[in-house]
Amino acid sequence: MSIWHVDKVPYVGHKKNLKSGLAFQYYNPDEVIAGKKMRDWLRFSVAYWHTFDQRLVDPFGDGTAMRPYDKYTDPMDNALAKVDAAFEFYDKLGVDFLAFHDRDLAPEGDTLRETNRNLDKVVDKIVDYQKTSGMKVLWNTANLFTNPRFLAGAGTSPYADIFAYSAAQLKHSLEIGKRVGAENYVFWGGREGYESLWNTDMKKEQEHIAKFFHMAKDYANEIGFDAQMLLEPKPKEPMTHQYDFDAATTIAFMKEYDLDKDFKLNLEGNHANLAGHTYQHEIRVARDAGLLGSLDANQGDKMLGWDIDEYPSNLYETVAAMYEVLENGGIGPRGGLNFDAKPRRTSFEANDLFYGHIVGMDSFAAGLRVAAKMKADKVLEDIVAKRYSSYNSGIGAEIENGTTDFKQLEQYIIDKPQAELRAATASDHLEQIKDTINHYIIDTLSK
Amino acid sequence: MSIWHVDKVPYVGHKKNLKSGLAFQYYNPDEVIAGKKMRDWLRFSVAYWHTFDQRLVDPFGDGTAMRPYDKYTDPMDNALAKVDAAFEFYDKLGVDFLAFHDRDLAPEGDTLRETNRNLDKVVDKIVDYQKTSGMKVLWNTANLFTNPRFLAGAGTSPYADIFAYSAAQLKHSLEIGKRVGAENYVFWGGREGYESLWNTDMKKEQEHIAKFFHMAKDYANEIGFDAQMLLEPKPKEPMTHQYDFDAATTIAFMKEYDLDKDFKLNLEGNHANLAGHTYQHEIRVARDAGLLGSLDANQGDKMLGWDIDEYPSNLYETVAAMYEVLENGGIGPRGGLNFDAKPRRTSFEANDLFYGHIVGMDSFAAGLRVAAKMKADKVLEDIVAKRYSSYNSGIGAEIENGTTDFKQLEQYIIDKPQAELRAATASDHLEQIKDTINHYIIDTLSK
Amino acid sequence: MSIWHVDKVPYVGHKKNLKSGLAFQYYNPDEVIAGKKMRDWLRFSVAYWHTFDQRLVDPFGDGTAMRPYDKYTDPMDNALAKVDAAFEFYDKLGVDFLAFHDRDLAPEGDTLRETNRNLDKVVDKIVDYQKTSGMKVLWNTANLFTNPRFLAGAGTSPYADIFAYSAAQLKHSLEIGKRVGAENYVFWGGREGYESLWNTDMKKEQEHIAKFFHMAKDYANEIGFDAQMLLEPKPKEPMTHQYDFDAATTIAFMKEYDLDKDFKLNLEGNHANLAGHTYQHEIRVARDAGLLGSLDANQGDKMLGWDIDEYPSNLYETVAAMYEVLENGGIGPRGGLNFDAKPRRTSFEANDLFYGHIVGMDSFAAGLRVAAKMKADKVLEDIVAKRYSSYNSGIGAEIENGTTDFKQLEQYIIDKPQAELRAATASDHLEQIKDTINHYIIDTLSK
Amino acid sequence: MSIWHVDKVPYVGHKKNLKSGLAFQYYNPDEVIAGKKMRDWLRFSVAYWHTFDQRLVDPFGDGTAMRPYDKYTDPMDNALAKVDAAFEFYDKLGVDFLAFHDRDLAPEGDTLRETNRNLDKVVDKIVDYQKTSGMKVLWNTANLFTNPRFLAGAGTSPYADIFAYSAAQLKHSLEIGKRVGAENYVFWGGREGYESLWNTDMKKEQEHIAKFFHMAKDYANEIGFDAQMLLEPKPKEPMTHQYDFDAATTIAFMKEYDLDKDFKLNLEGNHANLAGHTYQHEIRVARDAGLLGSLDANQGDKMLGWDIDEYPSNLYETVAAMYEVLENGGIGPRGGLNFDAKPRRTSFEANDLFYGHIVGMDSFAAGLRVAAKMKADKVLEDIVAKRYSSYNSGIGAEIENGTTDFKQLEQYIIDKPQAELRAATASDHLEQIKDTINHYIIDTLSK
Repeated sequence: MSIWHVDKVPYVGHKKNLKSGLAFQYYNPDEVIAGKKMRDWLRFSVAYWHTFDQRLVDPFGDGTAMRPYDKYTDPMDNALAKVDAAFEFYDKLGVDFLAFHDRDLAPEGDTLRETNRNLDKVVDKIVDYQKTSGMKVLWNTANLFTNPRFLAGAGTSPYADIFAYSAAQLKHSLEIGKRVGAENYVFWGGREGYESLWNTDMKKEQEHIAKFFHMAKDYANEIGFDAQMLLEPKPKEPMTHQYDFDAATTIAFMKEYDLDKDFKLNLEGNHANLAGHTYQHEIRVARDAGLLGSLDANQGDKMLGWDIDEYPSNLYETVAAMYEVLENGGIGPRGGLNFDAKPRRTSFEANDLFYGHIVGMDSFAAGLRVAAKMKADKVLEDIVAKRYSSYNSGIGAEIENGTTDFKQLEQYIIDKPQAELRAATASDHLEQIKDTINHYIIDTLSK
Repeated sequence: MSIWHVDKVPYVGHKKNLKSGLAFQYYNPDEVIAGKKMRDWLRFSVAYWHTFDQRLVDPFGDGTAMRPYDKYTDPMDNALAKVDAAFEFYDKLGVDFLAFHDRDLAPEGDTLRETNRNLDKVVDKIVDYQKTSGMKVLWNTANLFTNPRFLAGAGTSPYADIFAYSAAQLKHSLEIGKRVGAENYVFWGGREGYESLWNTDMKKEQEHIAKFFHMAKDYANEIGFDAQMLLEPKPKEPMTHQYDFDAATTIAFMKEYDLDKDFKLNLEGNHANLAGHTYQHEIRVARDAGLLGSLDANQGDKMLGWDIDEYPSNLYETVAAMYEVLENGGIGPRGGLNFDAKPRRTSFEANDLFYGHIVGMDSFAAGLRVAAKMKADKVLEDIVAKRYSSYNSGIGAEIENGTTDFKQLEQYIIDKPQAELRAATASDHLEQIKDTINHYIIDTLSK
Repeated sequence: MSIWHVDKVPYVGHKKNLKSGLAFQYYNPDEVIAGKKMRDWLRFSVAYWHTFDQRLVDPFGDGTAMRPYDKYTDPMDNALAKVDAAFEFYDKLGVDFLAFHDRDLAPEGDTLRETNRNLDKVVDKIVDYQKTSGMKVLWNTANLFTNPRFLAGAGTSPYADIFAYSAAQLKHSLEIGKRVGAENYVFWGGREGYESLWNTDMKKEQEHIAKFFHMAKDYANEIGFDAQMLLEPKPKEPMTHQYDFDAATTIAFMKEYDLDKDFKLNLEGNHANLAGHTYQHEIRVARDAGLLGSLDANQGDKMLGWDIDEYPSNLYETVAAMYEVLENGGIGPRGGLNFDAKPRRTSFEANDLFYGHIVGMDSFAAGLRVAAKMKADKVLEDIVAKRYSSYNSGIGAEIENGTTDFKQLEQYIIDKPQAELRAATASDHLEQIKDTINHYIIDTLSK
Repeated sequence: MSIWHVDKVPYVGHKKNLKSGLAFQYYNPDEVIAGKKMRDWLRFSVAYWHTFDQRLVDPFGDGTAMRPYDKYTDPMDNALAKVDAAFEFYDKLGVDFLAFHDRDLAPEGDTLRETNRNLDKVVDKIVDYQKTSGMKVLWNTANLFTNPRFLAGAGTSPYADIFAYSAAQLKHSLEIGKRVGAENYVFWGGREGYESLWNTDMKKEQEHIAKFFHMAKDYANEIGFDAQMLLEPKPKEPMTHQYDFDAATTIAFMKEYDLDKDFKLNLEGNHANLAGHTYQHEIRVARDAGLLGSLDANQGDKMLGWDIDEYPSNLYETVAAMYEVLENGGIGPRGGLNFDAKPRRTSFEANDLFYGHIVGMDSFAAGLRVAAKMKADKVLEDIVAKRYSSYNSGIGAEIENGTTDFKQLEQYIIDKPQAELRAATASDHLEQIKDTINHYIIDTLSK
């Protein structure tokens, strides 16, 4: 008896059947690409909040979503019914991972003790489903931003009681992470930032949250919860200035407070755009620092200034992201691609959740195929190798090896005429590179 | 004896030869698509300023370009050598149209009379080349922004002498348009805007430039120059506030000053982005108003706040633009696609000009093929028709026909319960549409 | 017995008492500035939705607001209690106008008939209060965006039943406008725009809403409701692309559909910023077109991409806005300054509503004082007059009078050497103007 | 015999003489504010490039500037004449510091040896003037971005010869710094960034430039040049992605490559805005990290996406910047306020350079006065102290002291009901703070 009224989404391969249907054309989980199964490169995860909780509200409108469990009015009944719906959804879609905030699962009570009690009931049911389904948790997290008590932050709250509450809520969330065997634990600092610098002691707030993260790691160690710990950068929303603006800002913070050994980054495309970067840029920054942990998969509208969490469909972006992942040998030690994405407000039917995930999964699967082909052909590797080749020998090698200094370099160059210097540079032919990428997309995907 | 050291760029068709080379894979000029030759749908034009004059400077750096005519130091020698280079370039690339500003062609003298004399010599040579080559001019225009005299505008200058000069310069430019048989004449208001509202009489300035446009049209009529006249919107650059911010703003101006009968719009992708719009949006706005005249083909970097005039390579954007063009039955009565685009500063070799145009032409040719296939299959037409079908009969038809009023509509709806009203709406399945577009791109182009 | 626990906010004049308190330092309602009482220049209005309904939610957090009527759980009890609170608030603050949407006042029922019944009860109470208090309604409007039925628009909905419902809801809203004697009636097209052009017939949607506006005006005429009708531009929110992007776009639409005789514009600072303009720019555009109707008073954060509706406090912006108003002889025939503004989420106490309005009212009152002094001294008028003086005689006058043409202008200018042309331009000394404005702000306000 | 035809700019104090003239109303160099002379708090510096070299070009227009040394056509004559003009300018304006790039001073020769020779001649003259005038150099720097050879970077160039050239050029620049006694040495990475990630080895480039900085510091030590070394963040211009995006990004880089002991930051207002931050934010980030070195004084147009380097005039921004400086006990160990600012293109006369600096200096002097008064009154300090007071004792103190953990915090909070938790938060009254700042500006400056 199906809750969603859809069949399992099959892989049908590349079809000349153009209209999108409930089928994958590129995601074939057990097909081996670049030495690994697609499911192991991609490790797709469904986000509980956007898929099962999100009503498709916006700041000017009530929710439009129509969901099969709308018939339950008691919040706990609804919460438990959603678990059934969720696990059928995972099965029909064919994903291996889920992700959730504590508050996604169950309603709050009047005290944290009551809240935890509600939550545990739902987690019990999730654990049962995990046993029969084999579903894994990519990551879990604590919602430390929705309740009004977090209005000025959680780990950065100016109010010690709120810090204490946040710590206690997080403690239980880590315990749940252990129960469900979460591979990662994510911290998104929803309210960690400032509304105005005039009344904010930024340094004190950052010292507080650094302590908060250290205590969290200590407690996880204490209970033997060995998930990879991840910070998730995001700028401008919901606080006017968020502390974890982008990857580089978060790395500076991690280094300052000695967190870069125990924490890595969870990066998202739309967050990257809001900070003025591409998704590829953020992944590269994290990867170069050895801090790429996991990825949130979505896309933004570059003409807008807020997070719209659209399902990824832009093949240029998925090719670029997967190229970085291939270069990295995988997303991260235990990372995956979590769809922090939701349907548009006018795509309000239950089956739009399937269409959304299908375009997202197929776009990333296509990205993987194209990037793998480009890497196999060494298209870009050869360009890059040639571009920096002057550092392989002579003065370049001395620079790289640190065996030269300003005086030697001056002597080497001081009498070279302008024309010779200019001849040391070469055209990057960037327009040809763009054309080549178009060809790779078309040719790889049409096979 | 080749100036550019390249052969004529051939159409080789879709190849499994992935690396971009000096060949077209999608642009086949005489192939018929949707009932018309590709060359007639696309009417590609090469921009003189970006292709032959642009040194690849930026606000922080001197020009990096290497060009075959760099050997000439006398400005007139250089100007005449560029004409030879240009016509060989057109021939090798296989385009049918060119476009230019007056100042692109020849250096200024101390008076307008001397300036015109320099210009006429170069135009003579262009006219000669046109006879033998069959090359047509898509449009010409007057540069009323580079010289310091235009610091506060040309047609909107607060200084009557500058207005007079601009008029006189434009007069000669119209005469040249007639000589070269330009199909369109473009006005881009480089300096028409304001730096500060505190010292600007915006209304007076707009009245002045409206007169300027009317006088221009009158003079064109007088000399029998029957080109389509086009205004080109652009926001924010170079003036902090440009009057022709976007298509809608320019339309408001045209309607206010009775210019919408004689003028249409020339739209550009990067300009659209700077105004916060997509290229598709701007084309739709113009098309709906019956004012689509011609298109400048380029693309911007949405993460940047200025005009970078990159060669178009994003297939999503070219598909969208060509879909609008197909819906419109063509770009405009006499419009074309002019590459207002230049290589990146690090792509400084002469052959990068070919690579740039090839990726641009192939991307638009690909866009045409995909859009034509989508139209042939009525993919979107059916979706749109169904979406608005409630206006085909009943109360909807009465609304459309204007045979109802608020009182009747109230009576019709006042007792319908919420659930029934909600049932009148339908999901747009936007995620499915995005997936379908990906399939169309891959499938059409891999054939 | 006070609901708000504050006294009437007094005007205390300019104090060397620096900390802001519950008092006005610049707004003295009956003081005459530039020939008119301050209250008549400014016509301040309190927005019902932001002041009495807004819970200070954001997309990531539940409401933080604490309000005196939170004790009522029945929606109608709460609605009626808010009216008492509102009229005490107006009185304590000392404003003359209020503004509201229909849905701000009372909850919806299952049918429009029931909804109207709820609404009428609250309006009855408002009308009673108006009699005793003298409070006027600056404008009322219909909320055609919050309910899910409007997910794809109201007047532009693809669903005829939703158009019909919108018309019927608006009909009753116009009737209410007449009952409360609203001076203006505002249309903000919350959902009038598109999510994707791929499934949108933009032209059809605009034709529909133009009919909608004409029917609204016809019905207003029929019932003798003679309010000034206003369209309110806003870009990017909540629809990805809103049709009324900015003043110029809305003017183009009004002209196309013959609405510019019966409708004017209601402009807002934060909306201006989201479109890439200053508030002053938008006011100038409307004023030049003779279409300035009324103003929404708030300010945005230029570093953010969404509408934050902050209370105005930036004196540069209020001086500029009031300068435009003075030049216009008033905001508009019947316009005023409506505070479409709300406290920050961390300013959640009831008295923050007073502080917010005080900083807003005092900032606009200060702006009026500074702008009036600048006008009295003709600081800018003289600069502007001198700047355009070359059009007062000679060739300039011929241009203005339309007694010249391109041939005469060529003859006049063709032999002028470059240096002479350049000498026709003059420095704008914009840095000196900025310094002068600083001096005017300090000196006028410290008196 | 005056080159600039102006008298020494006097301090006249606050006047009811509203029109800006060639006089200071707020900058009184020897007046003591908050325990230090204004000249010592502010340490104003004139930027050679914008003041003496800048022709007021833009990407669409030739330079409009009129300068007294325009009569010299030989580049060296012009370069030497500019030194006379510069030192008279400093004297007339009454500043104590200057700043320059090597390439600002003298033209390049065909080899670096010849270039250095040209440069040394001009530096000789500067050193002579320093002896008689007492003028100090706030900082000098090397222009490693204008010449085409730097098209792909200097310290990050993929071409070893360009790296070598950059090192050699920088070597001489450090020697000049020592000769002129520069207090700081600035590195702005004009071309250090990437155009496309597809052909960029970002990690290798960053390793190279880190070596470059270490070699620079080593050489400075070797020659006994003990200036404070500064990196200057800037995003998006001229490279599409600049490595030193903002303060936090640069700090992450400095920490990664062990540069945070020897280098600090030079921050600019307009650069801050382009990265999506306020100037105050960037200063706070640097100050909290102990890395605030020096400041570039200018302002941007938040509606534009590029660097316009306007003279500072916005008092809100100067108050905020100077508040941070006061909190920091000074700009930095040896920092100052360098006017990286230029007149608008339409303010082309020589005296506009004076007006520009006057509005800038007076705006910062006013900012200092207001911020000092706010600090003296402890307006914000009291607000901040109260806001975080729950960390002074009890559970808060245990959190700060690190004497608690998640288990204790859970025990402390687990049974607190929602209402009690909410009562732990307090309103920030941000609207009242904004009003208070307005009052401080008016009242302090009108004294």
